[in-house]
Amino acid sequence: MHEFEFIDWIKTYLGNKGNHDQIPVGIGDDMAVIDFRGGHLLLGSDMTIQGVHFEESQATAEQVGHKALGRCLSDCAAMGGEPLAAIISVAKPVSLSEEWLKGLYYGMGELADRYRCPIVGGDTSGSPERLVIDVALLGRCESNPPILRSGARVGDTLYVTGPLGGSILGKHLSFEPRIPQATLMVRNLPVHAMVDISDGLSSDLNHLCKESGCGAELWVDRLEAVISHDARRLAEKTGNLPLVHALDDGEDFELLAAIGLPPDQLPSLGENIVLYPIGMITSERTVSLVYPDGTRSALTPHGFRHF
Amino acid sequence: MHEFEFIDWIKTYLGNKGNHDQIPVGIGDDMAVIDFRGGHLLLGSDMTIQGVHFEESQATAEQVGHKALGRCLSDCAAMGGEPLAAIISVAKPVSLSEEWLKGLYYGMGELADRYRCPIVGGDTSGSPERLVIDVALLGRCESNPPILRSGARVGDTLYVTGPLGGSILGKHLSFEPRIPQATLMVRNLPVHAMVDISDGLSSDLNHLCKESGCGAELWVDRLEAVISHDARRLAEKTGNLPLVHALDDGEDFELLAAIGLPPDQLPSLGENIVLYPIGMITSERTVSLVYPDGTRSALTPHGFRHF
Repeated sequence: MHEFEFIDWIKTYLGNKGNHDQIPVGIGDDMAVIDFRGGHLLLGSDMTIQGVHFEESQATAEQVGHKALGRCLSDCAAMGGEPLAAIISVAKPVSLSEEWLKGLYYGMGELADRYRCPIVGGDTSGSPERLVIDVALLGRCESNPPILRSGARVGDTLYVTGPLGGSILGKHLSFEPRIPQATLMVRNLPVHAMVDISDGLSSDLNHLCKESGCGAELWVDRLEAVISHDARRLAEKTGNLPLVHALDDGEDFELLAAIGLPPDQLPSLGENIVLYPIGMITSERTVSLVYPDGTRSALTPHGFRHF
Repeated sequence: MHEFEFIDWIKTYLGNKGNHDQIPVGIGDDMAVIDFRGGHLLLGSDMTIQGVHFEESQATAEQVGHKALGRCLSDCAAMGGEPLAAIISVAKPVSLSEEWLKGLYYGMGELADRYRCPIVGGDTSGSPERLVIDVALLGRCESNPPILRSGARVGDTLYVTGPLGGSILGKHLSFEPRIPQATLMVRNLPVHAMVDISDGLSSDLNHLCKESGCGAELWVDRLEAVISHDARRLAEKTGNLPLVHALDDGEDFELLAAIGLPPDQLPSLGENIVLYPIGMITSERTVSLVYPDGTRSALTPHGFRHF
């Protein structure tokens, strides 16, 4: 079983263990939803490992801390939620200096401060080879129900919050989680489904369609506008089309949303948020690229899998 | 800085990052306390690493899963809380078989079921060398306020919920988190402070006294009753006194509680819970061993430190 098949197995096996009465959404979305005293809590975690999620030679300690917490905050944005508190487990190799370790916490602390997410505890351990950081985030949805992957409706327009591809050149360490944007979106727009683009657009769109029981088409002419500068730079090195990097690269941490309004009816949400229309939700359970001349090709998910 | 000094540094640095208005208890107790809609939420995490917290040759997959989740459940017991949901991040080396990985989830699932703790999400990743599991637990205190390390009062009797020492011979993989016992204790007894014995009695008692601004004396004649069979077996190998293993070994996951009732006034809480009196809280800020002949010696914390 590869990673996604194994997650399906876990979901089935654990689904009847313990009491799920207060768990409207468990494994399979960006975060779980837990009912508590009439409110919606969100719970999720992300593990960040030296040599897997960052290379020590290419990232500062502050950037690693930023990424470790930012990944969880991005999940919270994708649920339309706000952070309540985070906890951090860190396993530290002997070789890591005290200064570097402090830098890691500076990176997390700065982001925690900006998004009003207190870091309230965690665990410390030794690690024989590598730095491992696990961040667990508790969030809440107070003024709106959580936005799930499963809510997309046929006819919804697909929007992304920013350019995609080539994040390995730097953005994966410096992205800003789209929490303010998500808050504005869920308050002002009919957002039916949302996911953050962590595995890659082709892969995360596939997850959204699968959970919603629908398909999608992506408009190649519109995708041109969301091919990032870094996707173009990386394409020069790899020989791939820049579009391929925009579709398949992971860790952009932009939001992909299915919204019940076409581009010409979308109100402006202010200068800090741009929504790029890139396609629409369809009833056929396939995901296609539609070219300007009307031809179509199937889009195969090619995002990153850990195993 | 060693591990505990670094935790103090983290606590100070992160203490003013983000909004702590709803965080009555942050870093430094068994779990953090978060106020939400008039209720108390608990949040904590524990990381379990191959070669650090278990040896693959000496533990089954099920035992590793049991320990990884059980450590968090033990923290929840120490707060007088009940589990609400857990999330699990797993980093898996290629060498680990699918069968072993399933066994890990069987171990967690069985415990999750017994203590009504649904596992609702998490993260999966590849890991170059070692299995790493991080469990984050969300708990709640509904019928009582959380029991902190800081609430011990001079004159309180110190009790433990079971025998101590030598857990490396097996108990560290098979212990039962003391959640039902803690629930009974906080409902029926004036429990002023509590901690689970994970670092070792001498070390965890030191934490409790430091947080409560007091000291303690331990009665050597009473400690005889809590020297475990495994502490005696291990002492034969190491040449240490069995008492030293009971005082300094970690990972027994019994509870240490400061309760405002002496042993002769303690009501029975039923056959599933035995509370062993081992000492009392004092105003002098030292921790001493008191021998049957009245002599005293200082007890130095010797529990496990990761760095």
